[in-house]
Amino acid sequence: MRMYDCIDKKKKGIKLTANELTAMVQEYVEEKIPDYQMAAFLMAVYFQGMNQEELAAFTDAMAASGEKMDLSSIEGIKVDKHSTGGVGDKTTLIVGAIVAACGGKVAKMSGRGLGFTGGTIDKLEAIPGFCTNLSKEQFFYNVNTIGVSVTGQSAKLAPADKKLYALRDVTAIVDSIPLIAASIMSKKIAAGSDRILLDVTTGSGAFMKQQDDAVQLAETMVAIGKHAKLPTVALITDMDVPLGNAIGNNLEVIEAIEVLQGKGPIDVREICIELSAYMLFLSEIDTLNQCKKKAEKSLQDGSAFAKFHQMVKAQGGDTKFLNNSSLFPKASYHYEMFAGERGYIASMNTEQFGNASMILGAGRIKKDDQIDFTAGIYLHKKTGDKIEPGDTLFTLYSSSYEAILEAEKVLKEAFQIGKDKPKERKLILKCIGVHP
Amino acid sequence: MRMYDCIDKKKKGIKLTANELTAMVQEYVEEKIPDYQMAAFLMAVYFQGMNQEELAAFTDAMAASGEKMDLSSIEGIKVDKHSTGGVGDKTTLIVGAIVAACGGKVAKMSGRGLGFTGGTIDKLEAIPGFCTNLSKEQFFYNVNTIGVSVTGQSAKLAPADKKLYALRDVTAIVDSIPLIAASIMSKKIAAGSDRILLDVTTGSGAFMKQQDDAVQLAETMVAIGKHAKLPTVALITDMDVPLGNAIGNNLEVIEAIEVLQGKGPIDVREICIELSAYMLFLSEIDTLNQCKKKAEKSLQDGSAFAKFHQMVKAQGGDTKFLNNSSLFPKASYHYEMFAGERGYIASMNTEQFGNASMILGAGRIKKDDQIDFTAGIYLHKKTGDKIEPGDTLFTLYSSSYEAILEAEKVLKEAFQIGKDKPKERKLILKCIGVHP
Repeated sequence: MRMYDCIDKKKKGIKLTANELTAMVQEYVEEKIPDYQMAAFLMAVYFQGMNQEELAAFTDAMAASGEKMDLSSIEGIKVDKHSTGGVGDKTTLIVGAIVAACGGKVAKMSGRGLGFTGGTIDKLEAIPGFCTNLSKEQFFYNVNTIGVSVTGQSAKLAPADKKLYALRDVTAIVDSIPLIAASIMSKKIAAGSDRILLDVTTGSGAFMKQQDDAVQLAETMVAIGKHAKLPTVALITDMDVPLGNAIGNNLEVIEAIEVLQGKGPIDVREICIELSAYMLFLSEIDTLNQCKKKAEKSLQDGSAFAKFHQMVKAQGGDTKFLNNSSLFPKASYHYEMFAGERGYIASMNTEQFGNASMILGAGRIKKDDQIDFTAGIYLHKKTGDKIEPGDTLFTLYSSSYEAILEAEKVLKEAFQIGKDKPKERKLILKCIGVHP
Repeated sequence: MRMYDCIDKKKKGIKLTANELTAMVQEYVEEKIPDYQMAAFLMAVYFQGMNQEELAAFTDAMAASGEKMDLSSIEGIKVDKHSTGGVGDKTTLIVGAIVAACGGKVAKMSGRGLGFTGGTIDKLEAIPGFCTNLSKEQFFYNVNTIGVSVTGQSAKLAPADKKLYALRDVTAIVDSIPLIAASIMSKKIAAGSDRILLDVTTGSGAFMKQQDDAVQLAETMVAIGKHAKLPTVALITDMDVPLGNAIGNNLEVIEAIEVLQGKGPIDVREICIELSAYMLFLSEIDTLNQCKKKAEKSLQDGSAFAKFHQMVKAQGGDTKFLNNSSLFPKASYHYEMFAGERGYIASMNTEQFGNASMILGAGRIKKDDQIDFTAGIYLHKKTGDKIEPGDTLFTLYSSSYEAILEAEKVLKEAFQIGKDKPKERKLILKCIGVHP
């Protein structure tokens, strides 16, 4: 393998062999290939794409570049879930508990990541005492006994992805569907589960603004899963409106608890039931329809909440907070935004709510940024809701008053108001992937 | 200017501003922009191209990145010439003398470069004693008094081009027409002449195999010249067949002397007259037609050869070699290849003759390779010639017998023989550029 030849081939649209791609990833991790050659290659991929065979080999090599989790000591079919991200997305907290309550096995490793709010790991750490760096033994034991555990992602997982992502990030090559697909799937393959459910979001609050792009990304990932003999299903879900009413770490945990208690916003509940049903179906628990019924029941009868309780306890979290959400610390400052006109909320620029939540302190811009667990936004009204002058639209929370002022500016035009009630929107737009 | 934004814009096909491109080149030379970002940018340029305004700014910034030659102490219009390279191309040696003999001024700085045979500088150094690192004062004096001088290119000329070319060379981004055009024109602009004649070769022995690509490159360079207020004309010339019969440093110098003496191969003579005519025309000496007549006359009456003699003498070269070519040292080994069949040479793979000449020792693969002045190929037959079994096709010369065996292998199928005489080919295929 000569990297020069690989760049030249890709540039000309000539297919690379599996051997070439495997060697390329290995040698890049070993620092035998310089960043400038890899940057040229990745930009060529941006324009020429990769076909299924190329992507399969590239992704496999990335997955094999570090430690590969061996979950064989956990009994049964392990099912993993990944979301391409959004605003107010607290589904993993809920879905893991539902799946475990219905007999599935969720051994989830999660990253912190940059973005609008913290990752799942950060949200869980909003519960005092919750430990997110379990030993492997503890992690396996918890999944075996409870059915679910969420722990921090090993730094040794898919180092090629880490290195490639860092390079794409500084060379404006993040928005390449094959490279996004390879990045996500390499980590999922390395994480060792038997089945994968992908939640591919689309809309103003998602990375994929256009549904067509989301579908293409989903199809690409499902194809990679197939090549890797890892049954994968992708749901295209709506992220044109924030999910639920809560954005920010404490606020989202509280909302997740509400949903687990059979309450909470309808959209969060509905999407969590759908995601759980697919995960249970992938785990061969029952038909999709029956899995959905089981998921619904687990929220009604308290069994999902009990699982969450068990998981939090097993990971050292203070369960008093689960029974009494008012224990969560409050933000030093809050600010309410009132409606000035009458009508219906026609649409929301969800990305702006994400940006505002980051400004308030709920997310990270840089790796080392400290998250303010109390920061965030509570939406009193969302797309489709009727508003009257004086109604509270949203409340901003932060430890910094300056941040509130800045966030308020960002959100000034984040709502579009119309005279007529907008059409109902669907939460699940499409399902992609073969059944197990 | 944020390099990230520039990469992203170019990737999306958004035009960059002159300020962005100027800052980019400056900061790259100052090592404020890392190679991996520039590699991503250049690959994006490969796919998205650059428009005339972008190229003008990019090229100007490259030209301004180092020392810019001030030729104002040389009287009259200074005309420069550049060839995109080929096999057996010894035109600069001849053309400079013709133009000087007809009243033009040629202050030529030339590189060594990698490739099939040495550059013009290497060829001139085949004449014992010839000095190619003149002081500026000596260089200017020689052009003022003789009309022509050829010296080595300053290392301080267009360092941005040097750095960018080195990066393109290891990232498979050499074959981008806008980047090739910017590279050539940045050096021409920095070299300080008032008019430029470009010899853009096309065919099996040229970098541009297809005439359409050669035309596009020529048009791009002429447009850059126009933006830089540097009147530029480009001739598209045939390089499907080696130029003349001699390939290799000593052999080419001997052939150049023959042409200057009014003898030598017709194709070399014809193309040198055309190139000289355009250079004289660009220098506003006379009409194109009259300039051609003057050029022809200078070969017949010995005035061009006298100029060459003067230039060689002024630069310390041993002029005995000019009057007696047999003084040039001979190669230790030579090998003749005979024809095995009857017919006409239908075509030649000229690049293979270039490769063979490099194998024989006439060129450089790496920067530090030593050139064997005696090495090369003498063609007894070329495309269009009739052959009989037993005719000598070519003779190989080298200091290494192994090299001869290897070169012979490369040339085994470099001739295509046909039954019928092939159509006459034109040497000058097209002229591009506005008249001064």
